[in-house]
Amino acid sequence: MGELRVRDVSEKELLARILRVLGPASRAEIGPGDDAAVLAVPGGRIVATTDTLVHGPDFRLAWTSPYDLGYKSAAVNIADVAAMGARPTALLVALALPDWLPATFVEALASGFRDALADLAPGCAVEGGDLTVSETLTVAVTALGVLDGVEPVRRSGARPGDEIAVAGELGAAARGLRILFDRFRDAAGTPVPIDRDVLTPAEQHDLDAQLRPRPPIELGVLAARAGATALMDVSDGLLLDASRIADASRVTLSIDVDLDDDALSGGEDHALLACFPAGSTPTGFEVIGHVRVRGDAAVLAQGAVPSTRGGWDPYADWDSALG
Amino acid sequence: MGELRVRDVSEKELLARILRVLGPASRAEIGPGDDAAVLAVPGGRIVATTDTLVHGPDFRLAWTSPYDLGYKSAAVNIADVAAMGARPTALLVALALPDWLPATFVEALASGFRDALADLAPGCAVEGGDLTVSETLTVAVTALGVLDGVEPVRRSGARPGDEIAVAGELGAAARGLRILFDRFRDAAGTPVPIDRDVLTPAEQHDLDAQLRPRPPIELGVLAARAGATALMDVSDGLLLDASRIADASRVTLSIDVDLDDDALSGGEDHALLACFPAGSTPTGFEVIGHVRVRGDAAVLAQGAVPSTRGGWDPYADWDSALG
Repeated sequence: MGELRVRDVSEKELLARILRVLGPASRAEIGPGDDAAVLAVPGGRIVATTDTLVHGPDFRLAWTSPYDLGYKSAAVNIADVAAMGARPTALLVALALPDWLPATFVEALASGFRDALADLAPGCAVEGGDLTVSETLTVAVTALGVLDGVEPVRRSGARPGDEIAVAGELGAAARGLRILFDRFRDAAGTPVPIDRDVLTPAEQHDLDAQLRPRPPIELGVLAARAGATALMDVSDGLLLDASRIADASRVTLSIDVDLDDDALSGGEDHALLACFPAGSTPTGFEVIGHVRVRGDAAVLAQGAVPSTRGGWDPYADWDSALG
Repeated sequence: MGELRVRDVSEKELLARILRVLGPASRAEIGPGDDAAVLAVPGGRIVATTDTLVHGPDFRLAWTSPYDLGYKSAAVNIADVAAMGARPTALLVALALPDWLPATFVEALASGFRDALADLAPGCAVEGGDLTVSETLTVAVTALGVLDGVEPVRRSGARPGDEIAVAGELGAAARGLRILFDRFRDAAGTPVPIDRDVLTPAEQHDLDAQLRPRPPIELGVLAARAGATALMDVSDGLLLDASRIADASRVTLSIDVDLDDDALSGGEDHALLACFPAGSTPTGFEVIGHVRVRGDAAVLAQGAVPSTRGGWDPYADWDSALG
C-alpha cells in the first residue's frame, strides 16, 4: 500500500482536503465552491476567480498559437465572472515562461488577452500581473468583476418548475479537441501543427470553439437581471455541471431536448447554464429543460438517467506522454 | 543573429513589450507598474496583486517544505498589498501540481497558507482558487485588499527632505539563500535536505527569513495613516527597490546608515521601504536615510554612488541545471 498521491485522488477530493485544512476562515459572502468568490469591500462587493492554463494538460504549443492561448486564458476566466451574474472589470495575469520562448510569443499572448477583452468584455483590462520563468509554460489568470446592482447568482437557487436554459454553444469545443487528437498527431501520438485547409468550415468552427472560445459574457449580467435562480459556466460538460446545480439546489435537472454526446458530456464549452422562473428566460438563452423536485437522479436526459455524468477531470485525463 | 528569446531580455523589457501591446486600456486608479493595482468598485476600491512561485527559480523541494512553501506564497503576496498601504482581505490560490506529489503535500501547503494569514494578516482568508496538474510545481497567488479610509501609497510621492525608513529586516533572506547554496548541495550542485542541527541560531534565523518570511504586514496601513509619501515592498534588494522609488518620484534616495552588501543588495526580504515627511516616521519603522533633490544618481549609499544596484532578476539568475 503506497502513499496516496495527487494522481490517486480526484480534483474534488483534493479540494475537499484543502478546504478542511483551511477551516472556516472565510469572511466572504461567497467563498470557495462556486464559479467565483464574492467579497465585501467598503461600500460594495466584488467577484473574484482564478483559473490556470498549463502546457500539457490544458494546451499544446503545437496546436495553440500564443494569440489563441491569450484569448482563451482571458475568455475562460471572465466566463466564471459572468457565471456569477457579474461584469468583468480587471484581470491579473501571471506568466511562468520557459526561457527559450521567443520574446514575440509573449507579445502575441498579450494581443490575445487584449482582443478577447475588447471582443467579449469591453471595459475590462489587464491591470496587473507577474512574470517568472518555468520549465512549464503556465498562464495563471485572476479575473475580478462587479455586480451592477444585482445579487450574485449561485448554483443553489434552482426551484422545481424553473426552466433550464443555455446561452452559447454546447459540444463544439469537445469536437474541436477530438479533431486535434484524431487528425493532428503523428504516428507516435505527438501533436503536429494544424493544417486548417484540410478542414471543412464546420470543423474549423469546432476547432475555433476549442482554441479561441467566445463565451457569452454579457449574458451573465442579463441572466442575473432576468431573475436567474442558478447560473454557472459549463466548463466540464453539461451533465456534470447540471448535476452541480442539482446537488447545490437539491433538485433534479431534467434536460428535455435531444442533445448528442458531445453536447451532453463535452467540456470547455464555457456556455452559461441557467435556471429561470417559468416563462422568464430572457432572449439569448435557449430553454433545454425544466427543474423537478429532487428524485433519485441529479440529472435526467429526455426522462432517463444518463449512463454517464460525462465531463472531464484534468487529473484523470492528462497523459503527459502526449507531450 | 538568432531570434530574440525570453532569456535574452530583462524582465523589465519583457514587461514593457507586454504593456505596449496591451495599450492604454486600463481603467484602474493604479494599473500595472506598482506593487499592486488599485481598482475602483461601486462605492469603494480594492487593491489587487499577483505573484507566482515556481519550482526551480523560486524554490526547491529539497529545501522547502510544503508548509513553508504555503507560508511564503501567502506572505510575499500580502506584502505587496501592504506595500500599497492596504489591508489584505482575501487570497485566490491556483496550484499546478505534479501528479506524483503526495496528497498530504497539498494539505501541508494549505496549512502554511492558513497559518501565514493567521500570523500576519488576521481576517484575510483563502477565498478561491484553482487546481490543475503540471510537470512543474507552481503556486500562483492573487491577493486582494482594502484601503481602510486611506489613500493608496505609490512609489512616486517621495519629496526632498523626506525621511527614508524601513520596517522589517534587511539581508537575512539573502544570507539564508547563501546558506542553502553553500551548505546544502552535493558535489554536483544538487540540493540536499537541510540539517538544521549544523546551523547556529543566527544561521537558522536567516534560513527562516528565506524559507518562511514574516513581512510586517500591519505596518503597511500604519505607514499610510502616518502620511507615507512613498511605500514599497523590498523584494529585489534595497538599492534596486530604492532606485524605483527614486525614479518614480524623480528624487535621489540617500541611504545614510552603514549597511552591508546583503542588506543593500539581497533580495526577498519583503521589508517595507517608505518615505515620510521629516519627523513623522512612525514606530515600527527605522530611519535609514533621507530624500534629496534628484542628482546624477538615483540612490546614494553613505554619500557615494553604489558600485551596483544589486537586486536579482529571476531571468538572469536562474540556473535550471541546479534542479
